[in-house]
Amino acid sequence: MYLVHASDREIGELVRSLVELKKKTCLCSVCFNLSDSDVCPICADRSRDQTLVCVVEGPAEVMAIEQTGAFKGLYHVLHGVISPMDGIGPEHIKVRELLDRIGNGKVEEVVIATGTRVEGEATASYLAGELKRYNVRVTRLASGMPCGGEVKYIDPVTLKTAVEKRHAI
Amino acid sequence: MYLVHASDREIGELVRSLVELKKKTCLCSVCFNLSDSDVCPICADRSRDQTLVCVVEGPAEVMAIEQTGAFKGLYHVLHGVISPMDGIGPEHIKVRELLDRIGNGKVEEVVIATGTRVEGEATASYLAGELKRYNVRVTRLASGMPCGGEVKYIDPVTLKTAVEKRHAI
Repeated sequence: MYLVHASDREIGELVRSLVELKKKTCLCSVCFNLSDSDVCPICADRSRDQTLVCVVEGPAEVMAIEQTGAFKGLYHVLHGVISPMDGIGPEHIKVRELLDRIGNGKVEEVVIATGTRVEGEATASYLAGELKRYNVRVTRLASGMPCGGEVKYIDPVTLKTAVEKRHAI
Repeated sequence: MYLVHASDREIGELVRSLVELKKKTCLCSVCFNLSDSDVCPICADRSRDQTLVCVVEGPAEVMAIEQTGAFKGLYHVLHGVISPMDGIGPEHIKVRELLDRIGNGKVEEVVIATGTRVEGEATASYLAGELKRYNVRVTRLASGMPCGGEVKYIDPVTLKTAVEKRHAI
């Protein structure tokens, strides 16, 4: 309804933006994140730790992790997760590209930051297995209690993980 | 409205249950969990690990952790958390009782399972400090991504913790 009442100028601007969005957006040739240049600003930033690569499912995850300010390395965007139920295997996402990138040396730690649903965990296991052949430290996001949580309201599976993975303080 | 239409017998049963609830429920003299006997069934169960004590805020947390099946030790129920804003100090919850219990030897690990809100974290820090004087391992529930979570939807504070506390796989 908003668009029906919008002026021709507004509609024109929207159309131009949509066309430009498609035209200007590409994937970074290094990390496969969305970018408007061949190498994205994150990969091009020499002040970031070039030995640390965080593997994520998609561009939205890059944004979420950047927002935390906790990560100063580079990313690798898989564009999906392995999901046999949906017919998605490693060959359908950017796994080959990740292994090629790691094989080129330089990277010392790969942080697997896929989600904690079945597909995300399975993808993490698969990648950890594949990465064993390379001389890199493979790490995974910590699992446990979310911040601000009350023990009695946490789902049993998360609570079980939090008890099992308890750590010395 | 249900009670208005309930029979005398139903009302009588409810009244008896309420009176019995108050009369029969006491606190376990060891762990301070709700119980109907002086020593609760968990503390009385010799098959449980007597060297492991999990410190929780209240009886609901005992139920939640029991439900996971991941913990086979004993509990200590604080009946609250330290919250200076609400005028609740260590002397208002079962801290003295915990330290006395640990001081009696036998316990080798104390798992601090207070929540991850400010008061829960502050209580955990306080207890960790107090427990330094004793010869016990002090651990905390793992913090991080809850199970079934997607990275892009996790709150930034939890995601920051998950990145910082990542572990080798």
